[in-house]
Amino acid sequence: MSIILGIDPGSRKTGFGIVRLDGRKPVYVSSGVVKLPTDAPLAERLNILFESLVTVMSEYQPNEVAVEDIFMSKNAMSALKLGHARGAIMVAAGQQSLPVFEYEARKVKQVVAGSGNADKLSVQHMVARQLNLPGRPQEDAADALAVALCHIHFNTGVVASTGAGRFSRGRLRN
Amino acid sequence: MSIILGIDPGSRKTGFGIVRLDGRKPVYVSSGVVKLPTDAPLAERLNILFESLVTVMSEYQPNEVAVEDIFMSKNAMSALKLGHARGAIMVAAGQQSLPVFEYEARKVKQVVAGSGNADKLSVQHMVARQLNLPGRPQEDAADALAVALCHIHFNTGVVASTGAGRFSRGRLRN
Repeated sequence: MSIILGIDPGSRKTGFGIVRLDGRKPVYVSSGVVKLPTDAPLAERLNILFESLVTVMSEYQPNEVAVEDIFMSKNAMSALKLGHARGAIMVAAGQQSLPVFEYEARKVKQVVAGSGNADKLSVQHMVARQLNLPGRPQEDAADALAVALCHIHFNTGVVASTGAGRFSRGRLRN
Repeated sequence: MSIILGIDPGSRKTGFGIVRLDGRKPVYVSSGVVKLPTDAPLAERLNILFESLVTVMSEYQPNEVAVEDIFMSKNAMSALKLGHARGAIMVAAGQQSLPVFEYEARKVKQVVAGSGNADKLSVQHMVARQLNLPGRPQEDAADALAVALCHIHFNTGVVASTGAGRFSRGRLRN
């Protein structure tokens, strides 16, 4: 494992974030958001998402892909729409022969921001801190970077010992 | 429009059916079911689905793809799973540069079997009748052929005047 592509899927906006492991240190490489035209037919939107991610994969050559999963959706229609996007993403990764790992949103927040209920701002803040970014990444991109950090955490333990973990323990000590 | 690929998406089994238009007459070409291994990871299953459909498209060279849509799902988790399959299907069609048309299941049943509440057996029966098949196609394949016939109906009026329409009117006359 050396270059991780984290993905935060969405029916309208899908965040992506590339994190490289420099020894045991996670290093920010790139991040962004694929925005889909709301007025285009579904098949066209999903192909835009597929092709955008294939382009990202070709450019950054990740070794592994980490995708955010949902624990439970309240609404069947939004679950269907999210499923469409996740299907296109899984096919993009598979067509690039990349292994896909899934992490529940709660687990990602727990690892990166110290709480499964952390809000968007906390995730943005902690991602920026752990990757030494000059400012807060856009929220979907931050979620994607958080998934990549979560994947690194579960495979190396790196993130917990340098970022959220210490932050979390610090709070418990108070 | 001359060769239509109808698809009945499912998270475990996806039916497909190829119908060719011979003048105004729909002619059966092929049909089948893509079964996905339940024990494989999601990304692998979706890539098997994607690749199987790309193979079908390459072999039969359809001009248009008709996919069954759901009106409403009661369950968010099953909607998410169905969405995954539909996402892979839409990307397969898009990567083959094929236009995709969507038809609600109720509408498909209405057109092919004369009622939006028609059961699986009625759909199998009417599809076999309209395409002069020697026996009933497997149920997912029958649903896929029904979607193809529905698409032909809405683009040419062929099916309603030779199959379900006449059957439906016949019943009303009794």
